[in-house]
Amino acid sequence: MLALLQQRSGEANLQRTLKATEKAARDGAQIICTQELFATEYFCQSEDHANFDLAETIPGPTTEAFQSLAGKHGVVLVVSIFERRAAGVFHNSAAIIDADGKLLGVYRKMHIPDDPLYYEKFYFTPGDTGFRAWDTAHGRIGTLICWDQWYPEAARLTALAGAEILLYPTAIGWHPAEKAAEGESQHAAWRTIQQSHAIANGCFVAAVNRTGHEAPAGGDGIEFWGRSFAVAPSGEILGEAATDTEETLLVELDLSQVQEARTHWPFLRDRRIDAYDGITRRLLD
Amino acid sequence: MLALLQQRSGEANLQRTLKATEKAARDGAQIICTQELFATEYFCQSEDHANFDLAETIPGPTTEAFQSLAGKHGVVLVVSIFERRAAGVFHNSAAIIDADGKLLGVYRKMHIPDDPLYYEKFYFTPGDTGFRAWDTAHGRIGTLICWDQWYPEAARLTALAGAEILLYPTAIGWHPAEKAAEGESQHAAWRTIQQSHAIANGCFVAAVNRTGHEAPAGGDGIEFWGRSFAVAPSGEILGEAATDTEETLLVELDLSQVQEARTHWPFLRDRRIDAYDGITRRLLD
Repeated sequence: MLALLQQRSGEANLQRTLKATEKAARDGAQIICTQELFATEYFCQSEDHANFDLAETIPGPTTEAFQSLAGKHGVVLVVSIFERRAAGVFHNSAAIIDADGKLLGVYRKMHIPDDPLYYEKFYFTPGDTGFRAWDTAHGRIGTLICWDQWYPEAARLTALAGAEILLYPTAIGWHPAEKAAEGESQHAAWRTIQQSHAIANGCFVAAVNRTGHEAPAGGDGIEFWGRSFAVAPSGEILGEAATDTEETLLVELDLSQVQEARTHWPFLRDRRIDAYDGITRRLLD
Repeated sequence: MLALLQQRSGEANLQRTLKATEKAARDGAQIICTQELFATEYFCQSEDHANFDLAETIPGPTTEAFQSLAGKHGVVLVVSIFERRAAGVFHNSAAIIDADGKLLGVYRKMHIPDDPLYYEKFYFTPGDTGFRAWDTAHGRIGTLICWDQWYPEAARLTALAGAEILLYPTAIGWHPAEKAAEGESQHAAWRTIQQSHAIANGCFVAAVNRTGHEAPAGGDGIEFWGRSFAVAPSGEILGEAATDTEETLLVELDLSQVQEARTHWPFLRDRRIDAYDGITRRLLD
């Protein structure tokens, strides 16, 4: 069983997330995933050098706290962390922790957005991990992060590396001024593109998004749209959280559906790998 | 305006399709696309050497008939043809004809399926055209064919080549015995993956599917599910035909939405072309 920890940023985020993790484990979850940068508000709404002080190393106090929980409860954890790798080299990362508490590896967000109130290019050096998968006690999983979810290449490469579940810690929401006109379409696109990764690759996909309104830099802020969800290899939504409430979404995954989907829709069989060279070009102009 | 010619196979398919093309042109269509292999029943339900006699060359009588119509009405046409390229080399192709009647080029289906009642690998040599786009009088368009629609790589490469509209002549339907249990999920996956190509690439996508039940080889046959549709770069469905009726779907496209979508969702800006090499590998194992 998979648990997605959809939370509202507030006081003591780390402690509350540890507590939610422990509860999910007690409720039977085997793989538990946090939302993106859960430890703090979504600070990328402004470009402020003081925010670099929020970062920490991997391993570090956060990974240690979660490693301890993982070992205690025998659960696999994917933990989003603002990583300080070196002076001036910071990443938007996810730590992958196995059910025995071992830190299996780190994924560093490869695609970095820069849009109004999502000034991530200021903070995060683009990842150099590439797209990976890890064998865990509860399945072979891959992690990508938020903006990565718009890139079919990222999902494909993670699936080709063997991931049967793609997990996306996320922080996405509406600009309040756009919500009435564009909100529904924006949310639908976000869900659709991730359903498509499940379909194209015959694997499970899950996104863990934050909820609540945050305006740490003043102004209108961002209304995070929650709606954490998980998708089967068929593209069917297995479970979906609400828009505006904290919620741990528990979803049962039957990993045998990967083989079922990939033989009934044998897309991986027929890929034209002789003809995909252009994917590594910016444009074919 | 775009016209998608969703038809039921029967008597005089070529003549009926020419007539539908002419009517769509009179109704204001500027780009008109046929369904896959519209000239005949979907003969790939069995492996029968006699069916190779259904193929014709490009140029040939079908392209000539459509070229004449294109020039007469000033419309761009995408015409699906079972192509005889040489003895023993047959393709599932689409001819792209400009509004002055000129044959601009041919796309040969790159991804060839082989599933129960879709025995295409017996008939069609995999295409060697790669993924292309053509400047026409009414926009820069790309064509892909049916099974291609499950491959994000195909959509991406066609978009990188500059296509603002991706057209997919299609022949997809239900196995009657599966329809009750799987039909809705199968159709939803088909629509979702194509919406995702529009979203990921910030372009228009349209699929033209046949309708009606066909069992040329006996047995249960295939119930083609119609539902031809067009999608905006936002992922929103602009128009959708019915499941079981012939219909020319007319859809107004505002090509300025491509620029709008690609600057508001600037995915093409942030592609990690330094990290996509693995796409040309079968698996990363």
